[in-house]
Amino acid sequence: MSLPSLARYLPILDWGRRYDRGQFYGDMIAAVIVTVMLIPQSLAYALLAGMPPEAGIYASIAPIVLYAIFGTSRALAVGPVAVVSLMTAAAVGNIAESGTAGYMTAALTLAFLSGAMLVALGLFRLGFLANFLSHPVIAGFITASGILIAASQLRHILGIEGKGHTLIEILQALWNNVGETNVITLILGVIATAFLFWVRGGLKPLLRRAGLGPRMADIAAKTGPVLAIAGTTLAVWAFDLESRGVAIVGEVPQGLPPLTLPSFAPELLSDLFIPALLIAIIGFVESISVAQTLAAKKRQRIDPDQELIGLGSANLGAAFTGGFPVTGGFSRSVVNFDAGAETPAAGAFTAVGLALAAMFLTPLIYFVPKATLAATIIVAVLSLVDFSILKRAWTFSRADFVAVSVTILLTLFFGVEAGVSAGVITSILVHLYKTSRPHMAVVGRVPGTEHFRNVLRHEVETQPHVLSLRVDESLYFANARYLEDQLLRHAAEKPELTDVVLMFSAVNEIDLSALESLEAINTRLRDAEIRLHLSEVKGPVMDRLKRSHFLDELTGEVFLSQHEAIRRLERTSKL
Amino acid sequence: MSLPSLARYLPILDWGRRYDRGQFYGDMIAAVIVTVMLIPQSLAYALLAGMPPEAGIYASIAPIVLYAIFGTSRALAVGPVAVVSLMTAAAVGNIAESGTAGYMTAALTLAFLSGAMLVALGLFRLGFLANFLSHPVIAGFITASGILIAASQLRHILGIEGKGHTLIEILQALWNNVGETNVITLILGVIATAFLFWVRGGLKPLLRRAGLGPRMADIAAKTGPVLAIAGTTLAVWAFDLESRGVAIVGEVPQGLPPLTLPSFAPELLSDLFIPALLIAIIGFVESISVAQTLAAKKRQRIDPDQELIGLGSANLGAAFTGGFPVTGGFSRSVVNFDAGAETPAAGAFTAVGLALAAMFLTPLIYFVPKATLAATIIVAVLSLVDFSILKRAWTFSRADFVAVSVTILLTLFFGVEAGVSAGVITSILVHLYKTSRPHMAVVGRVPGTEHFRNVLRHEVETQPHVLSLRVDESLYFANARYLEDQLLRHAAEKPELTDVVLMFSAVNEIDLSALESLEAINTRLRDAEIRLHLSEVKGPVMDRLKRSHFLDELTGEVFLSQHEAIRRLERTSKL
Repeated sequence: MSLPSLARYLPILDWGRRYDRGQFYGDMIAAVIVTVMLIPQSLAYALLAGMPPEAGIYASIAPIVLYAIFGTSRALAVGPVAVVSLMTAAAVGNIAESGTAGYMTAALTLAFLSGAMLVALGLFRLGFLANFLSHPVIAGFITASGILIAASQLRHILGIEGKGHTLIEILQALWNNVGETNVITLILGVIATAFLFWVRGGLKPLLRRAGLGPRMADIAAKTGPVLAIAGTTLAVWAFDLESRGVAIVGEVPQGLPPLTLPSFAPELLSDLFIPALLIAIIGFVESISVAQTLAAKKRQRIDPDQELIGLGSANLGAAFTGGFPVTGGFSRSVVNFDAGAETPAAGAFTAVGLALAAMFLTPLIYFVPKATLAATIIVAVLSLVDFSILKRAWTFSRADFVAVSVTILLTLFFGVEAGVSAGVITSILVHLYKTSRPHMAVVGRVPGTEHFRNVLRHEVETQPHVLSLRVDESLYFANARYLEDQLLRHAAEKPELTDVVLMFSAVNEIDLSALESLEAINTRLRDAEIRLHLSEVKGPVMDRLKRSHFLDELTGEVFLSQHEAIRRLERTSKL
Repeated sequence: MSLPSLARYLPILDWGRRYDRGQFYGDMIAAVIVTVMLIPQSLAYALLAGMPPEAGIYASIAPIVLYAIFGTSRALAVGPVAVVSLMTAAAVGNIAESGTAGYMTAALTLAFLSGAMLVALGLFRLGFLANFLSHPVIAGFITASGILIAASQLRHILGIEGKGHTLIEILQALWNNVGETNVITLILGVIATAFLFWVRGGLKPLLRRAGLGPRMADIAAKTGPVLAIAGTTLAVWAFDLESRGVAIVGEVPQGLPPLTLPSFAPELLSDLFIPALLIAIIGFVESISVAQTLAAKKRQRIDPDQELIGLGSANLGAAFTGGFPVTGGFSRSVVNFDAGAETPAAGAFTAVGLALAAMFLTPLIYFVPKATLAATIIVAVLSLVDFSILKRAWTFSRADFVAVSVTILLTLFFGVEAGVSAGVITSILVHLYKTSRPHMAVVGRVPGTEHFRNVLRHEVETQPHVLSLRVDESLYFANARYLEDQLLRHAAEKPELTDVVLMFSAVNEIDLSALESLEAINTRLRDAEIRLHLSEVKGPVMDRLKRSHFLDELTGEVFLSQHEAIRRLERTSKL
């Protein structure tokens, strides 16, 4: 394999050769900041995914390194993120009880399957499949997931049981157990939540007024979770709140990530297949959106197919080192970027930082209250909740509104998998519906010009014996019969008709069904002694028509322009 | 309800008021001819569907009358047809053993469900759904079904057991039992088959030479099955072939169709839901194609939504009168049309003829050999087998070829339901794939004109600081990101770029995802100090863009034409 082709699959060969000291310092500083921020985040998302706390840290080490080797984004930081962790909990929760060995194995297998799928999609260059997840569907899904996640964390704030995969399950479970609320946990949780909300809103302006630059103020504000955890952990330790019933993280094994193996049991693989596919696609879409946003700021390019391989390797890494499904996270990547990360090496340094934390800092984690972790999750995900997509979709296009509403409602009330699947299917169906009934306009000539416009909207000249119909859509099976129906309806209304001109300026593509419809139209019009003409046929469409017998059988002609068609047909009728 | 709106749902009110003596004679003659032809056909398709022979006749009585009331075609004749009978056998055969009461009930339920679905689709005006079954998929499906049906009837010609729902099952079963072939049955079957093939090919020219008009010769040739049945039945009776092991139809109850009830057991309804939907759609597509072909010859119009109601009523009628799923048949409708049927009353008269047959002629049916019925089926369906669709699709469009091949292979080797579902899904996926990677061309001005063409195909003038990109597809979620990728790739290749013009002449529609991509493109280009312009935006697309903030945020302008855009941008750059 020559270097250029190897470099395609190993972007590290490209940036690694030109790595210099300036880049090293930038990467190093970014790595320290991101490491500090990632520790509480990793613990929190492990909690959300139903995994032991150390799994969150493990899931941030090998995946970061592998992404640094295979990924194309300079700033993307991969690891556990909220939505994917929730999806993991939903998928694995159906198979095993949280805290059991079976649960761990299923999570590893889920990461393995998603990773393998991502790599396969990348190798076969099938990244475009992710496009079928439309922007509004993603926005609706993220908003609904945010609500689900926040609701699922309330039990930690209240110190009670209350699990569930849909909003109704969660609220019912909370309602049943709310009587057992632990007041000290609640106080701790509410204080942590309030503090974190204040950090988001109030701390940054304060730091700015204290003289910090905007970038530093931003980064400092992101350390809020670390402060909250340090403060509440100290409180738990100082006042022995563990004995008062405050749930804490507890014993966390010390050391580097273990070598783990996913399961290859066919039944488990088949049970996890659909969830793994959804996690792969959602994770990829989230990741590439972040990567592209950041790359565009520096006019860099992201290769979507290579990103699939990068993200897939990261997930495979997670599967073999005690993690769970990961993806490129928004907040961590932005911090990485803002802190000055220059190359993927920043990620590798972060991994070193986290590995050190896993080896030496885990005893400090013992007293971290789960309520504070829940608070950091709630505050993070509520910032994702944004119902404005509904209003935006309603204003812009009802079709999008339907897709978003279906996604939000199904995610909340039937769970993440139902929500995202229904969103994709609805948006495809709505699109097919729209293109199946294309806009068609009877056109006439704007007096004194060569322009042809809709007779219903403009004062135009028409001929009683000529029907000119502009078709505003590519012709394919879903609308082929509609064209037939519409055209024959128009023809039936005009008994004096001798010529029909189909204006094809907006027809980009024609398939065999549409060709057969055109042939049927031609035959039926011929039986009724009406000629069929085409005008303004595009090159690729014309090429395709030439591969059939249609042009030989056409009773009329193919005109270069609509103007030409009418000029000729006027003359013919005068003869 | 006023008369016009009632007449919409009851077309009989329209033609019934103007019914005259000439129409009556035409209808009467057609009815006699169709009745004679329908008796063997009904018996044969009942055999194919795994139903008792009388069910075939029952399925032709009430459905014909109901279609006459609710349908819009003047010539369509509904009743059992080959493909739908095969689908019935496949669906019901999974649930009960042929010949049992459970089988009958399941067939009635299947007719009821399909009928209810068709009526519902008609009332909600959802007839366009049938369009998702593309012409090539239908052609492939009919061809593959024809082969399956012919293969499934070989056992009757051989006089052995040999059932199956896929080609492999059928051939295996035949192979296992071929040793038990009944030679007399085989001789009878081969003679009948040969005679029927000769009737199709050789009888008509003979009749023409004997002085018959082309229409009469055609109709007379269609009586072939009646002659074959009469001849072989006489042979069975005269030589007592029943005692020699020739399978015959046997006892058939005498009398009018019974009143029957489909089952409403939830489990059965849910088992039959998908098959019923497929039968409804396939039946509708087959029926409406025939109806439209015949209507076009007389410049009449078919209302697809009303056709759904007509066909749905016919199936509901079959469900309550001992029948099984029915649809508009091609050969019977053509005979009806050619014999001079003027109104749906011809159908009603045919129903009377069949009712008389059910009351008085069933004893004559006793000695009809099943081998002859099988022969009529084989000869009828082999005329449907036409692999030319494969060649046609290959030449015209690879996408269609894929859809047809998948349909044919899956129908043959996995059965009718898998085949038709896979065909629909494949053609939708292929369509989505094509539109997800639309053709885009960098365009430049053809010297001395106002035309802009692809720089790769034409000698054109371009400006180094302006990129003009023509998008040849409506923009929606599946291609929104592709547009982003392509545009940013082009932009990244031209560091001297200051202006990008997107030429929207072929963009017929824009959804929220595409709008967000345009906004992202606008933002990213702005970050890189490049302005974004649009040109030749259509009215409906412009209306939609005005409902968003995009036009306020657009860094460039919206130009009426591409020519105007370049003229202005040239001037700007000179300043």
